[in-house]
Amino acid sequence: MENGGGANGNQWGFKANEELKTASGITVRGVLNSLLENLNKNDTRPLIPLGHGDPSAFPSFRTASVAVDAIVHSVRSARFNCYSSTVGILPARRAIADYLNRDLPYKLSPDDVYLTLGCTQAIEVILTVLARPGANILLPRPGFPYYEARATHSHLEVRHFDLLPAKGWEVDLDAVEALADENTVALVIINPGNPCGNVYTYQHLQKIAETAKKLGIMVIADEVYDHLAFGNTPFVPMGVFGSIVPVLTLGSISKRWIVPGWRLGWLVTSDPNGILQDSGIVDSIKSFLNISSDPATFIQGAVPQILEKTEEEFFSKITDILRETADICCDRLKEIPCITCPKKPEGSMFVMVKLNYSLLEGINSDMEFALKLAKEESVIVLPGITVGLKDWLRITFAVEPSALEDGLGRMKAFYDRHAKKQ
Amino acid sequence: MENGGGANGNQWGFKANEELKTASGITVRGVLNSLLENLNKNDTRPLIPLGHGDPSAFPSFRTASVAVDAIVHSVRSARFNCYSSTVGILPARRAIADYLNRDLPYKLSPDDVYLTLGCTQAIEVILTVLARPGANILLPRPGFPYYEARATHSHLEVRHFDLLPAKGWEVDLDAVEALADENTVALVIINPGNPCGNVYTYQHLQKIAETAKKLGIMVIADEVYDHLAFGNTPFVPMGVFGSIVPVLTLGSISKRWIVPGWRLGWLVTSDPNGILQDSGIVDSIKSFLNISSDPATFIQGAVPQILEKTEEEFFSKITDILRETADICCDRLKEIPCITCPKKPEGSMFVMVKLNYSLLEGINSDMEFALKLAKEESVIVLPGITVGLKDWLRITFAVEPSALEDGLGRMKAFYDRHAKKQ
Ligand SMILES: Cc1ncc(COP(=O)(O)O)c(C=O)c1O
Ligand SMILES: Cc1ncc(COP(=O)(O)O)c(C=O)c1O
Repeated sequence: MENGGGANGNQWGFKANEELKTASGITVRGVLNSLLENLNKNDTRPLIPLGHGDPSAFPSFRTASVAVDAIVHSVRSARFNCYSSTVGILPARRAIADYLNRDLPYKLSPDDVYLTLGCTQAIEVILTVLARPGANILLPRPGFPYYEARATHSHLEVRHFDLLPAKGWEVDLDAVEALADENTVALVIINPGNPCGNVYTYQHLQKIAETAKKLGIMVIADEVYDHLAFGNTPFVPMGVFGSIVPVLTLGSISKRWIVPGWRLGWLVTSDPNGILQDSGIVDSIKSFLNISSDPATFIQGAVPQILEKTEEEFFSKITDILRETADICCDRLKEIPCITCPKKPEGSMFVMVKLNYSLLEGINSDMEFALKLAKEESVIVLPGITVGLKDWLRITFAVEPSALEDGLGRMKAFYDRHAKKQ
Repeated sequence: MENGGGANGNQWGFKANEELKTASGITVRGVLNSLLENLNKNDTRPLIPLGHGDPSAFPSFRTASVAVDAIVHSVRSARFNCYSSTVGILPARRAIADYLNRDLPYKLSPDDVYLTLGCTQAIEVILTVLARPGANILLPRPGFPYYEARATHSHLEVRHFDLLPAKGWEVDLDAVEALADENTVALVIINPGNPCGNVYTYQHLQKIAETAKKLGIMVIADEVYDHLAFGNTPFVPMGVFGSIVPVLTLGSISKRWIVPGWRLGWLVTSDPNGILQDSGIVDSIKSFLNISSDPATFIQGAVPQILEKTEEEFFSKITDILRETADICCDRLKEIPCITCPKKPEGSMFVMVKLNYSLLEGINSDMEFALKLAKEESVIVLPGITVGLKDWLRITFAVEPSALEDGLGRMKAFYDRHAKKQ
C-alpha cells in the first residue's frame, strides 16, 4: 500500500477512539478549565477559587508537618525506590486497616485493603470491575461527575436517584427501590457529601444498608471526606453496616490531610461475611490492579507514619476552620437575594445553593452565572449542571477565610449590578 | 424484590466483569508471583531475582542523591500538595521537552509532552486512544506483555511481527508489511529492547520509519530504557525520524534513574508535522487524561531538578556496571550447555537465551525450567512464554555483580543435576 489509503481518507491510517470525548466531557476539571479561560486578564485582583475542593495552597490549610516528614524519611531511606506489589505494600495496607478499624464493630485485615492513586482510581477500579454487559449502577444526583465519566467509559449504565434538599440531602430511598432491577449492581453514596456538604446520620445509613440488602446490591461508600464533619452530626463510616450489606469503602488522604496532589487512596472491602470474595468481585479487583498503575512506592512507605503519627490537634484545627468558613459562607450568601441555601453544610468542603433567575437581569442559566462571575469578578464557582443539578451552584468554602470574605463580597457586588430593576 | 433474585442465582445481584481476568492473565507480575510461590522456604540462601528489571534494591544501583534531594526539596516547599493539571505541570513538561531535545534535530515544545504514571500509563493512554472498533496494532514478538494486556482490555486487535535473533533482534520488516492492512494504526518498537537487550542502529530505525510511512501508520517508540546502551551501538531516539513518520515517544525516569517506584513517565508527540494533532489523536489523549490519574504533584515538581542536575558521572557509573554484568552473564551462561545466547545484549537490562531440552532430563518447557529452578535454587528467571517466545528464558543481568555470579553458578549446578545422561 503506497502512502496509503488510511481509513480517514488521507495518507495516515489512524484515527482516535471518539468515545473518549463523550466520557470526559463532563468532568469538574473540564468545566473549571473553561471558566478559567473566561477570566478577564486585566483584573488585577487575586482570583478567588470557590470552584474546586483543593485548599492546599492556603496557609490555614497547610498539611501536618509529620506527614511531610514521613515522606522525606521514606524517600531518604532508599527502601521504597522499587516497584510496588499489585495491591500495595503490606505495611501501608495494615496501617489503613488499623485506621479504619478504630470506627468499626469488626476488624478489617490488610487483605481487605487495596492501595490506589487517590480515591479517583478507587472509583475507576470498582466501576470497571462492575461493568458487565447489561449491568447498571445507581448514582446520586447531585453527585461527583467522575462516576458518570468512568461508568460511560466502561459502558456501565447509570441510573440517578435524587438527594433531597428538603431532607438535608438524604437519599430518596423510594426512588432507589423504583430504579433498581435485576441488573443493578450497586448504589453509590458520598458521605460526607460532595457537592452537598451533608453528613448522614447513623439511622439514615442503616436504612440505606437495609434497602440495598433488600435489593441484593452492594453499597459503594465514597468516604474521601471522612471525618471532615464539623456540624452536629458525627461521621459514621458505612462499613459499620458491612454485616447487613457488602460495602466497598473508598477513601484517601487527599482531603483530611489536605494533600490531594500526593495521590494516595484506598479501596476496602468492608464485608465481614465475605460476599464480595465469594462473588468474584475480589478476584476481579486484583486482576484489574494487575494492569493498573500504582501509587509511588515511597509514598506508600510513608503511610504508616502519616496515619499513626498525625496529631488530633491538626485534625481539629482543620475542622475548626471548615466550621468557621462554612459559617462565613452561609451568612454572607444570605445577603445575596438571588441565592438560597436549603441546608447548611455539616461536612466536606462544599455547599449547594439555588439560583433565582427572576431576580436577575439577563442571566438564565447556572453556566451563564458562573461564566459572567468569572469574567467580571475573578471568582470561580461551579455551575450545578456539572454535578447534575441545573440552576444550582456548588461553592467551596474551604479557602482562606479572608479570601472567602473577599469572594462573597464580589458575588454580592455582582448581584447588585445584575439585579432586575423593580 | 425481597432479598432478591440476583443474576448469579443467590441473594446478591452482582457479578464481576470477567474480561478482566483474560486481560491480566499475561503480565510479568502475574508469572513472577507464581514463581515466588514456588520457592523452597527451607532454602537459607538468598533469593536471586533475575526475573524482572528492578535493580533498585542493590547498592550498586542506588539512585543519584540529587534525585532524592529534588523530591525532598519539592515536598518540603509545600508548593506541590495541590492537584496537578490534566497534562502535568508546566515546569516538568518543559524539563522533559528540553531533555529530549538534546538528541533531536527539531525542537519539542512542552505542549508535546504529557506526564504519566511511569511508562506504564503512557502505554495505557495510547492504546486506549487508538482502540477504535476494528483497529489493529502491530506488536513485537518477543515483547513486553503489558501491551497485549492493555490492548485486550481495550478490544484493540493485536498482530505480532517477529524480532529476528539472527539479525540482532531487528524488526522483521517484511512481516510488518505483510501484517498491516487499512485498519492498522501503529507499530510498536522497544529500544533499547526488553526482553532482547537490542539497541537499534540509526539505519534500522530509519527503515522502520520509512516502512511505517509507506503503510500510513504511526510508530510508538517505547524508550523507557533510553540511554541504557553500553555496547557499540549508540542509542538513537525514534523521534529523530519524526518528520518521516509521526512518532509517539514513551519514557520514564524508572530505568535510567533506577527509581521504578517513583511512577513518573511521559508520552510525547515527536511529530514536527503535526499529524497527530490533525488526526484528533492529541485531543483524544487529552480527553483520556481528563479521566485518568496523575503522577503525584510533588514528584512532578522535582522533575526539572532531576533531569537537569543529575551528573554524567551517575549515568556512566550505571552503564559501566550494566556492561560489566552483561559480560558476566554471557560468559557464565556459556558454561551451561542447555542454554544458548544468540546475541550479546547492548542495552536495557535483559538478555534472551534459548533452551535446549534435548540436553535435559525431565524438563520440557520454559515454565517447567523456571519453576524447578525457583524451587531448587531460589533463582528466578522469566519463562520466555511470558514475553511471547516459548522455549526461551529472559534473564536480567541488572543485579549486584556478586549476586549475578551466585545466581548463574546455581543455574550451572541446576543444569549439572538435570543434564541428560549420555
Ligand atoms: C466525592 C469525591 N470522590 C473522589 C474524589 C477524588 O479524590 P482523590 O483526590 O483522593 O482522588 C473527590 C475529589 O474531589 C470527591 O469529591
Ligand atoms: C518495555 C517496557 N515498557 C514500559 C515499562 C514500564 O515502565 P515504568 O516503570 O516507567 O512504568 C517497562 C518496565 O519494565 C518496560 O520494560
